[in-house]
Amino acid sequence: MIMTELSLPIIGIMHSPYVEKFGIPRQPNLVQVESFIEMHAPYNVLEAFEGIEEFSHLWLIWQFHDNKNQQDKDKFRPQVRPPRLGGNKKIGVFATRSMYRPAPIGLSVVQLKAVKKEGNAVRVYVTGSDLLDGTPIVDIKPYIHYSDAVDAAQSGYAQHEPVRKQVIWSEHAQQLKSKFLQTADMDPKYIAEL
Amino acid sequence: MIMTELSLPIIGIMHSPYVEKFGIPRQPNLVQVESFIEMHAPYNVLEAFEGIEEFSHLWLIWQFHDNKNQQDKDKFRPQVRPPRLGGNKKIGVFATRSMYRPAPIGLSVVQLKAVKKEGNAVRVYVTGSDLLDGTPIVDIKPYIHYSDAVDAAQSGYAQHEPVRKQVIWSEHAQQLKSKFLQTADMDPKYIAEL
Repeated sequence: MIMTELSLPIIGIMHSPYVEKFGIPRQPNLVQVESFIEMHAPYNVLEAFEGIEEFSHLWLIWQFHDNKNQQDKDKFRPQVRPPRLGGNKKIGVFATRSMYRPAPIGLSVVQLKAVKKEGNAVRVYVTGSDLLDGTPIVDIKPYIHYSDAVDAAQSGYAQHEPVRKQVIWSEHAQQLKSKFLQTADMDPKYIAEL
Repeated sequence: MIMTELSLPIIGIMHSPYVEKFGIPRQPNLVQVESFIEMHAPYNVLEAFEGIEEFSHLWLIWQFHDNKNQQDKDKFRPQVRPPRLGGNKKIGVFATRSMYRPAPIGLSVVQLKAVKKEGNAVRVYVTGSDLLDGTPIVDIKPYIHYSDAVDAAQSGYAQHEPVRKQVIWSEHAQQLKSKFLQTADMDPKYIAEL
């Protein structure tokens, strides 16, 4: 008998400053933003993270949850239009990291900052995440350099980072930004990014 | 409401020469063995792989299916004894790639060799896999060098490859091996490995 489904627990939820999809970097590590995973019970115990501080980086495996056009198993669409190719060219879904895939899970490297117990909560603080606020986390694994870092990998259309664009602020925009930052209810640690 | 489960499709099955757990390399790419994923319907279409040949490496996300002591969600065991630490020292499960984790999924880099249509089957040929024969595959993603290859990553107890041991064959063992290879029902492409 062929198994057709695998059920996985959601072990925690990402808390990040990305509250909507359109501000998100297309791949992790393009922008250094701090965020944390709040672990669900029964996974909210420090013991489960003992030894993790020896690792500088982690893999997050997570659910594409804000995905209104999510693929229906009965209606597989084998091709997608990746934004990286201008949004017009169709290629095979397994040649992309698109969210419109049979298993709606993403894979991201993040830098580990700390794991902390805060009251009943256990929080995993990371930087470099590209995850939307509220993203369900399915697994956290250590990044293992010798098996995961493939220096010689050729990555076709996605070999290089997207070109970073420099933002030039007008004086007026600068003033508006300062005003906003003074009045907005923001965690000061995110303000440095703006 | 907190979601607690995510259901994923099994998109294919690994066919590999590793038929039992104890012969398997602990991480991928330690041994170059050829294997293939046979895609399940409706994912067995070449269109779904168009453009994948531009990528030298792939991520496989797969189920730890031969896992008799699999973790019960109601009985979370937060620590494991990784073989890499001698099997005695306990550390947090999220500081390891152990199979005894809440979401029983593994993550492996493989080299892409080819995607082929053979009759009704679509097969993804890879090398460097550490997967057991029959492993259910949940997702196939391209390896993206600029986001996935973290050269500076520190990986604690697993920073370096396990030491490779040289196998010295006695003359008698050599003869037995030759006899076995002549009589065993093995695919010739695997024989070079022995």
